[in-house]
Amino acid sequence: MSATSSLSALPTPSLLLDERKMLANIARLRDRPALAGVALRPHLKTAKSVEVARRVLAGGNGPATVSTLREAEVFFAAGIRDILYAVGIAPQKLPRVAALRAAGCDLTVLLDSIEQADAVVAASAAAGAPIPALIEIDCDGHRGGLPADDPQIIEIGRRLHTGALLHGVLTHAGESYGVLGAAAHAAFAERERHAAVSAATRLREHGLPCPIVSVGSTPTAFAATDLDGVTEVRAGVYMFFDLVMAGIEACRVEDIALSVLTTVIGHQRDRGWILVDAGWMALSRDRGTAAQTVDQGYGVVSDIDGNVLPDLIVTAANQEHGVIALRAGSTAGLPAMPVGTRLRILPNHACATAGQHGAYEVIPAEPGAPLVHWPRFGGW
Amino acid sequence: MSATSSLSALPTPSLLLDERKMLANIARLRDRPALAGVALRPHLKTAKSVEVARRVLAGGNGPATVSTLREAEVFFAAGIRDILYAVGIAPQKLPRVAALRAAGCDLTVLLDSIEQADAVVAASAAAGAPIPALIEIDCDGHRGGLPADDPQIIEIGRRLHTGALLHGVLTHAGESYGVLGAAAHAAFAERERHAAVSAATRLREHGLPCPIVSVGSTPTAFAATDLDGVTEVRAGVYMFFDLVMAGIEACRVEDIALSVLTTVIGHQRDRGWILVDAGWMALSRDRGTAAQTVDQGYGVVSDIDGNVLPDLIVTAANQEHGVIALRAGSTAGLPAMPVGTRLRILPNHACATAGQHGAYEVIPAEPGAPLVHWPRFGGW
Repeated sequence: MSATSSLSALPTPSLLLDERKMLANIARLRDRPALAGVALRPHLKTAKSVEVARRVLAGGNGPATVSTLREAEVFFAAGIRDILYAVGIAPQKLPRVAALRAAGCDLTVLLDSIEQADAVVAASAAAGAPIPALIEIDCDGHRGGLPADDPQIIEIGRRLHTGALLHGVLTHAGESYGVLGAAAHAAFAERERHAAVSAATRLREHGLPCPIVSVGSTPTAFAATDLDGVTEVRAGVYMFFDLVMAGIEACRVEDIALSVLTTVIGHQRDRGWILVDAGWMALSRDRGTAAQTVDQGYGVVSDIDGNVLPDLIVTAANQEHGVIALRAGSTAGLPAMPVGTRLRILPNHACATAGQHGAYEVIPAEPGAPLVHWPRFGGW
Repeated sequence: MSATSSLSALPTPSLLLDERKMLANIARLRDRPALAGVALRPHLKTAKSVEVARRVLAGGNGPATVSTLREAEVFFAAGIRDILYAVGIAPQKLPRVAALRAAGCDLTVLLDSIEQADAVVAASAAAGAPIPALIEIDCDGHRGGLPADDPQIIEIGRRLHTGALLHGVLTHAGESYGVLGAAAHAAFAERERHAAVSAATRLREHGLPCPIVSVGSTPTAFAATDLDGVTEVRAGVYMFFDLVMAGIEACRVEDIALSVLTTVIGHQRDRGWILVDAGWMALSRDRGTAAQTVDQGYGVVSDIDGNVLPDLIVTAANQEHGVIALRAGSTAGLPAMPVGTRLRILPNHACATAGQHGAYEVIPAEPGAPLVHWPRFGGW
């Protein structure tokens, strides 16, 4: 069967993954000369799939970043050993962390307070084995972390070094998602580098170890030119990309490897609407392009073969209904699309859209190969 | 264990369901005198749980509405037989519909075009058994459906009556979600009634049968005073309610039966932020209150016992991080909340938030009874 006839046979809505585009995105970051001297620790929170992890991690099971302990458990069960849980640790989660470590998973946690450091020390004592932790540094006011010059960093470092394992520092320039173009992303990359390296230097000046200096986000990983002092770079959404990343020029629309296959179920011709069976349950409620230069609604529409259709976007979404219309101000004509026509919707935010689905229907990189079904998982 | 100590032992984030509140919401609609003469066909798209269905359907397995064929399949397997699939039918889905009907499920489809009617007629012929369909009527310009005076209704009715089963008409005032107060909801209820009954009358005047006249939405079901000519009422989110419904006065905040249990993982004290482990993956990206009088961010914060905390809302959400802060303009003080503190977040949109979780952790209506785990499902 051709790709189009295979896609015609899938139930809708379904989540499609173009493996060729994904592999190109993975290679583009992996092969950046600026990253030659550092480790790449891809974030698997977008993927949540062992099959994707195999293709994005160094050697198929190299260092990984996760956003939930469930991800750590699933990926460890699949043979991935070096895992960073990059969300500030809740003390109640430490028994699960200790159990994973006791089973052989080299799991590292993240924290930014003395309370958390004391909890990690107590859990290390309870487990009879030190739990490694990174200290989160705030480089841009986005979310968690301590400023690089905060005296608590030293106190946290001391406590971890004494009663657990002080592995180093981590920062993430989440604000880089809000700025346009490689130069702006490179400026955030330098903020990441400067904050993380400054904090690491202070720890070392106090006689504390800091083997890991971890930075990263998709925009900064692709734009960084100087990683002096950095030991590892993290990035996640880049393996799929999405309209938010295209909107800040971190990728092109044609690099986006994910889409939602949908079927036309009706029309409101007087209003210029085409109704499809992909609503927000299939697309997610993410409206990440709303604040960008071009608002893509709930997603950009392409035909079944992946060719973007001029000015057609999903302008509204109910639970299981999407409304496709021309973007405001368009002079394009609304194409004739009989009931039953199949379309693909490119997502605003790959992490959110993928999170609505239980599997990827994969268009293999090998031309003419049949579709493949890759399960994905959720939960915590 | 007390409820609080049971909740302290759950992993976070978890989806909590207060069964007592749910049963009260269910009873409140079921017992409305205005609905005495009509059937109630609850929509199970919010619940996606056999345990919830048992408690909301008449007799535990009475008539139901669903938004996906997967819901139809799961609920039919649980013994629920009379099911309306209330999303416009895609022709490609008709073999699954026919298979469910052949297995004994009394499944009805919805359509609003001659193309779809012809597809249902063809599928009925292929199956050797007529497939029943309702014609969707548009009462408020919200989504699908034909205007009640559209001549196509008669042509569709003729084709269905000849080659399939014409079961009647359906309408849904989705725009009722955007207006405030019972009087405004009652006006939309009358638009639903008028549109559906008008279309039914026209079909009958043309000698066509119209046994079912189906209307409904949560706001209109609670506000309707005159249902003359209507045979059934549908509503879905009312079993749980949410902040969007509270914002239009379809319920009180204290009626909301769903919440997301979360744990404090950090602070940015200079910015007045409390960070928790419920981000948009646990809360959904739904910002349905953004356009209402009071914007509740990503949700209202209560303590572990369910007491709403003054002016505290989730002001921002990343994938696995929520930021709790005082709402803009508040003069309340930020409460001290050490790392490890447990909180509950009331959802903007119950359908979307529940959709992010694989199960309900149920606080039983019976005082002192232990927590119960009810699986929920997703997919299509």
